Amino acid sequence: MPLKIALAQVNLLVGGIRENLNKIVDTARHARDTLAADMIVFPELAVTAYPPEDLLLRPDFIAEADRAVDEIVARTVGIDVVLGFPEQGQGQLWNSAVVLRDGKRHVVYRKHVLPNYGVFDEQRYFSAGSQECVFQAKGVRVGLSICEDVWTPGVVEDSRREGAEIMLNLNASPFHAGKIHQREEVVRQRIEATGIPVVYVNQVGGQDELVFDGASFVMDGEGQIVYRAEEFEEQLGIVTFHGDRPEQAAIAPLYQEIVSDYKALVLGIRDYAVKNGFNGALLGLSGGIDSALVLALAVDALGADQVRAVLMPSRYTRDMSVQDAIKEAEALAVKYHVIPIEPAVRAFEEMLREVFAGTRKDATEENIQARCRGIVLMAMSNKQGSLLLTTGNKSEMSVGYATLYGDMAGGFAPIKDVPKLLVYKLARYRNSIAGVIPERVITRPPSAELAPEQKDSDSLPPYEILDPILERYVELDQSADQIVAAGFDREVVHRTISLVDRNEYKRRQSPPGIRITPRAFGRDRRYPITSGYRGTG
Amino acid sequence: MPLKIALAQVNLLVGGIRENLNKIVDTARHARDTLAADMIVFPELAVTAYPPEDLLLRPDFIAEADRAVDEIVARTVGIDVVLGFPEQGQGQLWNSAVVLRDGKRHVVYRKHVLPNYGVFDEQRYFSAGSQECVFQAKGVRVGLSICEDVWTPGVVEDSRREGAEIMLNLNASPFHAGKIHQREEVVRQRIEATGIPVVYVNQVGGQDELVFDGASFVMDGEGQIVYRAEEFEEQLGIVTFHGDRPEQAAIAPLYQEIVSDYKALVLGIRDYAVKNGFNGALLGLSGGIDSALVLALAVDALGADQVRAVLMPSRYTRDMSVQDAIKEAEALAVKYHVIPIEPAVRAFEEMLREVFAGTRKDATEENIQARCRGIVLMAMSNKQGSLLLTTGNKSEMSVGYATLYGDMAGGFAPIKDVPKLLVYKLARYRNSIAGVIPERVITRPPSAELAPEQKDSDSLPPYEILDPILERYVELDQSADQIVAAGFDREVVHRTISLVDRNEYKRRQSPPGIRITPRAFGRDRRYPITSGYRGTG
Repeated sequence: MPLKIALAQVNLLVGGIRENLNKIVDTARHARDTLAADMIVFPELAVTAYPPEDLLLRPDFIAEADRAVDEIVARTVGIDVVLGFPEQGQGQLWNSAVVLRDGKRHVVYRKHVLPNYGVFDEQRYFSAGSQECVFQAKGVRVGLSICEDVWTPGVVEDSRREGAEIMLNLNASPFHAGKIHQREEVVRQRIEATGIPVVYVNQVGGQDELVFDGASFVMDGEGQIVYRAEEFEEQLGIVTFHGDRPEQAAIAPLYQEIVSDYKALVLGIRDYAVKNGFNGALLGLSGGIDSALVLALAVDALGADQVRAVLMPSRYTRDMSVQDAIKEAEALAVKYHVIPIEPAVRAFEEMLREVFAGTRKDATEENIQARCRGIVLMAMSNKQGSLLLTTGNKSEMSVGYATLYGDMAGGFAPIKDVPKLLVYKLARYRNSIAGVIPERVITRPPSAELAPEQKDSDSLPPYEILDPILERYVELDQSADQIVAAGFDREVVHRTISLVDRNEYKRRQSPPGIRITPRAFGRDRRYPITSGYRGTG
Repeated sequence: MPLKIALAQVNLLVGGIRENLNKIVDTARHARDTLAADMIVFPELAVTAYPPEDLLLRPDFIAEADRAVDEIVARTVGIDVVLGFPEQGQGQLWNSAVVLRDGKRHVVYRKHVLPNYGVFDEQRYFSAGSQECVFQAKGVRVGLSICEDVWTPGVVEDSRREGAEIMLNLNASPFHAGKIHQREEVVRQRIEATGIPVVYVNQVGGQDELVFDGASFVMDGEGQIVYRAEEFEEQLGIVTFHGDRPEQAAIAPLYQEIVSDYKALVLGIRDYAVKNGFNGALLGLSGGIDSALVLALAVDALGADQVRAVLMPSRYTRDMSVQDAIKEAEALAVKYHVIPIEPAVRAFEEMLREVFAGTRKDATEENIQARCRGIVLMAMSNKQGSLLLTTGNKSEMSVGYATLYGDMAGGFAPIKDVPKLLVYKLARYRNSIAGVIPERVITRPPSAELAPEQKDSDSLPPYEILDPILERYVELDQSADQIVAAGFDREVVHRTISLVDRNEYKRRQSPPGIRITPRAFGRDRRYPITSGYRGTG
């Protein structure tokens, strides 16, 4: 008697308990009625979506989630529904998985391993469980586990000892480059030790700084993938088990890393805009590579008719920048406006003439230009209810090569975690599908165009040197000495690190953006602003 | 043979290992040579100061802290030095206290109870210790504990069983209103159960959003305070023990709550400006109560010659606002500038005329005014290297009654955690010392003056109603129904909650400010921006 297990890779809404409940019920009924599934597995904390953060501290929120489980129980008779929810009892909260069967909560499993590193704060909310949970389904013994539980041997091996023949693993595992290989490798290790197949179900969708990539899968007792859902899409998969042997099913191929990165950014933008109810998006288009990429991403996420571009030339903007920006907008069929900022810049110069008398021009005057653009864009965003996208990349955010309240003004920063060299790669990848970014934009030396003949390389080392130093310092926690030992110039390393350290205050006020590396700025990297630490030793 | 214990209530610099080391050595030598102390106790993690946040993930940082302990050992022979440091070993990190004696690390205690709630993330970094540590000092058995360890019975009671006659408790306990009473009460409970005195040493000083108030104390075996250090000041206290009996020493009285709040704000501003190396501070002075209070706080923190005020009237600014602002600046002997924003506002109106054709005036036009002021202030901050203080209060931050990149632009937000009604109380308190805020500023109805005849009460409920609703919702996690049941109008409650929920995106980009309530915005309240949760049920 085969056991048909559906994998519900769904895009849920954090905090949207009512919306999630309805989607869970509809999906479960569809799996039951159309796919003849015996069981459907939803992601970790599906009722609240992940991560609900401090909503978990609200008693009314927890109570509402609990009532939602009751309602799902009542509305999904005829199929086993396995889903995650925050379970309260004895003054504690657990990150739990429940099996709903025949109108009742059949069994409950409480997550053992609570990640409290990186972007995760689970020990802020949850107590750890300590009991395995193995239940029968059509004569097969099925074990439960949640996300981090499979990253160490404990739960899977203990469940095996308790007789589990199949392990379910409910996830909310966010994307970063290479993560999917890590996940499959870790699950393969568990299977090598136990010989039982694993059904891995992940959430999909964007949530503030995180993108959940889905890529749910089933791995058989030999560690072979027999099913894989497409990445970055909602998918309802189904795998038929004969005892502990899964039948072969559809296996979506894994994308190349550059494709995954691009799709993560598109999904992150789309979900931020849509889930927050924005009326389209807009951005400042400078003729540079960063805004060109963000424009393409925004159009791919929302559609050309939902995106507006604004060109805001100043006295330092070169003609070719304007020409290229117009070409980009036209190539993507995006409506654009040209609003020169000179009148506002001149007004501020005049207003500040007296207090600035006797001082020399410095970054202040450059910042005024960037901030005038910020005002124009925010005014359009306010008036239209559209989402202002910023265009700063991770290299700039790292060293503070950006103007607070200027080009950093906006609701969402799509490429905030994309280093400059990867910006170029993503631009070339996008052009390989259709040429939407003029070649000149990719090849000309990058410039902020806030001063005459300005180039990024006046202030910063070349990105070929800067980016690897930043990766070592920010993502890998290497010391200055280690980076120098790896072959980088000491003076450049020290200057770079010093810029990173000094610019934490800017990053703290930056809009959220999409994490695609193993360590983004934001919840992922919690540095003090006030700090006597000098990474340069 | 008496045991003289010095309590080192010091102001340290997070991450400033070299600076902290020198201060620790100097203070220990002073206690040894001038006060004839046998032992000196420093706060939790004194070597790195608290909280070092993700600096703790850097191997080079941990190694440097460890070398600093070695150097302190070598330079403080002749006195027992007890201090906190991050201790690494076996691939783990502990929040430890070490006793340095005779050029050696005599004993080490590892913190048992690691707070991971509110502003605390200790389980992100540290493993928990499980061993008590009792050592001999001049014939007396002394037990070690760190901060949270005394908030539950475990460590003190277990140390008592191991023979401890005196408990040391090393702290980094941040201020909020009423906290000091909680601390003394909790320690009294431990003493009631064990009968042994406690030496409680706390850090003092501002660190980003936190202020550590010090208020170190010694409580004898009967639960009586025999020594208390002054709040919000560096203090080196000394208490002589005969066996487990402390001699009576100086007891600084506790301040009234309003005084503590005021002093916390002053210290928070001073330390943020000084530790970050700013060249003074500046702020926009509107003639309203919020900026009047911030001006007084800034002057008390930094001195009148270190503060500049900028008046930026618009077409909607009433004459009396300008008059009152000038009175405030003059009363505090602060230099001020008057820079009307009309030219910039008009420039933007002109630039946006075409894209805004056919639209109606709304908050967009108000925001443009606020953002023009933001540009002026940021330009002056950039040019002079001075810290721009924002003047928004907690009530406004809660409901989003503020302009992102406008009046929210700045490096530090001193009264971000001060509800409006408390703003009034603090203003009256400051005037009770010397009348620096004109009475009319306190009594006239508050207005943002961004539209003709505008008053806060056009958009918001009266603060007498708004503030208690906000406290219940934000600080106490009450549901809409609970707040209504407490006697508030349902429609007002729903509207207020909805504003709080919808404005998380603004708060996420706000500058840091000083926490003075049990729950501030910032690290203390981690809400998703994208959220389907409706607190209104």
